[in-house]
Amino acid sequence: MDDDKAMVIFQPSGRRGEVPKGINVLEASRLLGVDIEALCGEKKVCGKCKVRIEEGWFEKYGIESKKTNVSAWKEEEDKFVNTREKENGYRLACVADIKGDLLVFVPEESRAGKQIVSKAARDIQIDHDPTVRLYYAEVDPPHFEEPTADFERVCRVLERDYGLRDLNVDIFALRQLPTALRDGNWSVTVSVWNNKEVIRFRPGKAERVYGLAIDVGTTTVAAYFCDLTTMEVIDTVSMMNPQCKYGEDVMARITYHMTSSDGLKRMSDDIIEGLNNLIDQAIANTHPPKKKKKKAKGDKRPDEYVEAPEKGKTYLRLAREDVEDLTIGGNTAMHHIFLQLNPEFVGLAPFPPVIHHSLDIKARDLGLRINPSAYIFVLPNEAGFVGADNVGVLIAEEPYKKEEVQLIIDIGTNGELVLGNRHKLISSSCATGPALEGAQLSYGMRAAPGAIERIAIDPETKEVDYKVIGRDAWRKYSEPKEMKAKGICGSGILDLLSELYTSGVITKSGVFNKQELEGHPRFRVNPDTKQPEFVLAWAEESSIDKDIVVTQKDIRQIQLAKGALYAGCKLMMRRMNMEKVDKIKIAGAFGTHVDRTKALIMGLFPDCEIEMIESVGNAAGDGCRAALLNKRKRTEANWVSRNVEYIELTVESDFQKQFMEAMQIPHMKDAFPHLEGIVPEKILKQ
Amino acid sequence: MDDDKAMVIFQPSGRRGEVPKGINVLEASRLLGVDIEALCGEKKVCGKCKVRIEEGWFEKYGIESKKTNVSAWKEEEDKFVNTREKENGYRLACVADIKGDLLVFVPEESRAGKQIVSKAARDIQIDHDPTVRLYYAEVDPPHFEEPTADFERVCRVLERDYGLRDLNVDIFALRQLPTALRDGNWSVTVSVWNNKEVIRFRPGKAERVYGLAIDVGTTTVAAYFCDLTTMEVIDTVSMMNPQCKYGEDVMARITYHMTSSDGLKRMSDDIIEGLNNLIDQAIANTHPPKKKKKKAKGDKRPDEYVEAPEKGKTYLRLAREDVEDLTIGGNTAMHHIFLQLNPEFVGLAPFPPVIHHSLDIKARDLGLRINPSAYIFVLPNEAGFVGADNVGVLIAEEPYKKEEVQLIIDIGTNGELVLGNRHKLISSSCATGPALEGAQLSYGMRAAPGAIERIAIDPETKEVDYKVIGRDAWRKYSEPKEMKAKGICGSGILDLLSELYTSGVITKSGVFNKQELEGHPRFRVNPDTKQPEFVLAWAEESSIDKDIVVTQKDIRQIQLAKGALYAGCKLMMRRMNMEKVDKIKIAGAFGTHVDRTKALIMGLFPDCEIEMIESVGNAAGDGCRAALLNKRKRTEANWVSRNVEYIELTVESDFQKQFMEAMQIPHMKDAFPHLEGIVPEKILKQ
Repeated sequence: MDDDKAMVIFQPSGRRGEVPKGINVLEASRLLGVDIEALCGEKKVCGKCKVRIEEGWFEKYGIESKKTNVSAWKEEEDKFVNTREKENGYRLACVADIKGDLLVFVPEESRAGKQIVSKAARDIQIDHDPTVRLYYAEVDPPHFEEPTADFERVCRVLERDYGLRDLNVDIFALRQLPTALRDGNWSVTVSVWNNKEVIRFRPGKAERVYGLAIDVGTTTVAAYFCDLTTMEVIDTVSMMNPQCKYGEDVMARITYHMTSSDGLKRMSDDIIEGLNNLIDQAIANTHPPKKKKKKAKGDKRPDEYVEAPEKGKTYLRLAREDVEDLTIGGNTAMHHIFLQLNPEFVGLAPFPPVIHHSLDIKARDLGLRINPSAYIFVLPNEAGFVGADNVGVLIAEEPYKKEEVQLIIDIGTNGELVLGNRHKLISSSCATGPALEGAQLSYGMRAAPGAIERIAIDPETKEVDYKVIGRDAWRKYSEPKEMKAKGICGSGILDLLSELYTSGVITKSGVFNKQELEGHPRFRVNPDTKQPEFVLAWAEESSIDKDIVVTQKDIRQIQLAKGALYAGCKLMMRRMNMEKVDKIKIAGAFGTHVDRTKALIMGLFPDCEIEMIESVGNAAGDGCRAALLNKRKRTEANWVSRNVEYIELTVESDFQKQFMEAMQIPHMKDAFPHLEGIVPEKILKQ
Repeated sequence: MDDDKAMVIFQPSGRRGEVPKGINVLEASRLLGVDIEALCGEKKVCGKCKVRIEEGWFEKYGIESKKTNVSAWKEEEDKFVNTREKENGYRLACVADIKGDLLVFVPEESRAGKQIVSKAARDIQIDHDPTVRLYYAEVDPPHFEEPTADFERVCRVLERDYGLRDLNVDIFALRQLPTALRDGNWSVTVSVWNNKEVIRFRPGKAERVYGLAIDVGTTTVAAYFCDLTTMEVIDTVSMMNPQCKYGEDVMARITYHMTSSDGLKRMSDDIIEGLNNLIDQAIANTHPPKKKKKKAKGDKRPDEYVEAPEKGKTYLRLAREDVEDLTIGGNTAMHHIFLQLNPEFVGLAPFPPVIHHSLDIKARDLGLRINPSAYIFVLPNEAGFVGADNVGVLIAEEPYKKEEVQLIIDIGTNGELVLGNRHKLISSSCATGPALEGAQLSYGMRAAPGAIERIAIDPETKEVDYKVIGRDAWRKYSEPKEMKAKGICGSGILDLLSELYTSGVITKSGVFNKQELEGHPRFRVNPDTKQPEFVLAWAEESSIDKDIVVTQKDIRQIQLAKGALYAGCKLMMRRMNMEKVDKIKIAGAFGTHVDRTKALIMGLFPDCEIEMIESVGNAAGDGCRAALLNKRKRTEANWVSRNVEYIELTVESDFQKQFMEAMQIPHMKDAFPHLEGIVPEKILKQ
């Protein structure tokens, strides 16, 4: 490598490249298309651009990252980076100059243009029957004739007034009782878990109780903060899974556990810490922003940056103790790593999990900082590669209650499939990899401002038109410099493969159509990699001063992903002796943006009437929320997790053949006869 | 105070006095009659005389103790006192010279002549039905057709072979499962708690499971280490309650909580730490002593002191994880402090506890270092002053199953009384204070070597004969210097009051009989305190170079204690309309040594046929053991705790009158008509 250059990698985006030594980390982030928040414009007064310099040898990238590879600590950082953060390697990106190779972690709060996580709560029908309920009790004070203990005194009223019997009590909650009773002048509000155990005593009458439903994805974590009495979703918060730094997919994380002595604990600690930060954030959002502190005369420190409280907004001002229930789901590997259960065998044929059944675990036993007496409900797993997240999808969508045959596709970093109806349900998984979400592609990126989300290619001229997130006008109605394109995200990728094919840029086997492209300015061979590539956006239209291209290898990645998915669907239908399904539901952020026609054209899933393809959003998260608000959903989850038959498709004798075939872009007429009239004649004939 | 002298207080014995500055702590301990182990005779090579210098202002004694009030750290201490101990104030008593006032804590292991705690396990009938049981399971390995999870695979076998259904699993235990199953070649031993929850997985076949039954007294803590499969008591270990430093009785501890901000937490932490040490000790006893390390050539450190392994002894070599169950009982205040429940209201009329019912608490939630997945069973409380310890006594003695009327007296630092039979049981408590156990008397001491345990006083000459623990021959058959008397312990105190009275040294109201004692060499007025006192042992017979005396105030203390007990018994009998009871059972260490005739003479409890007075030893501990080995005893404990009627005696209108009368030594003929012929005529007539 050039001695004047350093390799810099930003996590969790994975963006990397060589930058000139001497520039600061913020400048490097711009060069590499990473968004770091910098409100003050490098005046070093906002403290928003905090990043963490990771230390260690990073095999995957062949670099050694050291804190000493940035310039020395500067006084102005003291204002924004506290001692604990400093010890952990935090710096201000606008202050730290690059002296050598670096792996830089950009924490969620420092990311500009936050990812548009399509994990908002949907409006699904949930009956109100939460596991944690409040009961108000007024008791007689003790006297010499009746010196019964505080707890039994309260239990007597709970039995008389509410029919609650044989209640246990958590020791941490019991410690609150004597004071709560006397502070409340012999009245208390009792939080009871599952009609079984008292988990909180509050003096007098309390009306509200809160819970969190959390969906732990391999890449993204989303949490719904709910009022358990009104069922209202009071906030949705999300973050990147902090384990991303150990590997992008499930197998990489399992491998990390197997190859490093404390890998499991480290990954588990990271997700727990991440969840605690997410909880803190949800709690903090219920408080008005802090007022500016009055400075003493002569204090030269800058004014603190303070957001104004929203007008007319009422703040609940909750504390951690107010979160008294939590449900959580994730794929089996995320489930195991979160619980510090050995995930090794989930990654080894025949992929048995450690446990299927749901678990009720005290928050304190996992180090989750909600009410310490609260239980966490961990959704059950179906199989090694169809986890608690899929159970969440099932209890949200309830295909086991319907007569119509549904195919439910949950595309995250792994693809999970369920097929069937109330008579029979089977599930399977397919290794789509993260390509459909934009990862692993040369210019793949998260769904953030600047990401190409729609593409159209003219079949005649092969000219590219596109639209980026954050700008309404398409390229052809804009000045080049207005586009500020940065990369391509999941929904753009679907458009991409379909448009490349229908415009004739690639053949049905996914290879660049050299004949048609001969001499076209957008088609070229990259001099460094010797790979053919096609330009989607020119450097002048980008915010990264580089052409944004799709390479032959990128196309191969997309084909592998869509092939895995299509073959999986087809093999499952064969198992059930089906030619066609009644409905296709697409769960996950991916589904929200999918163009159904283009998905059919590129052969993402089997034929289905277009209007019967439905996006169901973050159904896994909805399932967690259903389990939070209705305890019968927990029973249902356990039932369904053991009554969906898991099919291991990779052991089917013709799996490879099916998979290879599925990588091709299908013959339209054969695959989708009913698309006639919807898709141009020219395409149908291809 | 003399500038050349320092006030030194030793804990937990409470022995205190002024000593010349400049002597070392070991020398001071000898002057004050405290036994510290010193095997090497101050050659500074055994390291046995480790003590802890406490820091702080001790209101009770009016001294400020500081680590700097002893001489500086010496190199030879490094060999025996590790860094952590050093930080906590540990020193070698033979090295540290006294420079100022000190409060010195002598840890259990440094005490010579360990207390003879009469808390050995009795042979009581317990049916074998432990709460924790082992089940062996052989399962089929998973394959593609049957990739069921590890846990469900094991559960299937447990249901098929043992009928166990719907088992929960502790998360800490679940983490062991994948490895245990594979290490055991698909066979595991499963520890199941209460037919409900799996708390441990071990590979292959394991046969043994262990538990501890712990009786937490205000002064002494005793633990029975039991094999749950054979019911054998494999060891009994005991210690002083480390909370003694905060006050000797229950009220003093409650006061400490109310007057210091973190008093409850501190006392709770101390008993937990003490229990952990006790557990460590029980575990260490199952291992052979460590072999001497080979020293490298030139290593000048002394050989480690090593006990030889006992010949023919087999060692179980257990680990903490092997302790999978624990039952614990104590009076209500000890119960509350142990669990960090506010004990304030237990000390305030009408004395309601926080809870009656038993509690199942995870060991890890209390910081007890046994198997972290294990549950602690905390016995239920009857009332504020009749606690879980008394429930232990009841389930061990089972008066509720008998027709005969029993009066059960548990004399610890507080007296707890139960009266009745299978038709009705009532309980009460009486504030005996610790005088009957030897505390609070000028020369009171624990039942340790050198303690006077038997006394006889000649009615004619008023000469005193006595026997000390650790020496078989009485005083009159020994040379004075052979006696090495140090003080008087619980059993000696009973003898004392009875002998003082029958010999005419005191009158029936407890006052020295000045007429009879006029000019007697053993009777004198202490020039310092102006208190009359009677010499029991001359300085030359003692190991403390001082006359051992009983003062008028001491006698008053004993009378207060016995009066409280006697009045309590009488008032309870009146409540039940009883003149006489069928049986008196005396529980506690005290009962083991009690001379039944002398107890009747001094009026300790109501009239009863002498042969119907029975010592039942540490019945509270036996009850804990019964609950450990038989889970139905736990149900029985909860039943009895709510079906014994608690009577608050102090609110009886004539309580004071009864109490004052009971302080007197009773008229023999009236109180005990049947004692004629047993007690000398002269006494009966008094």
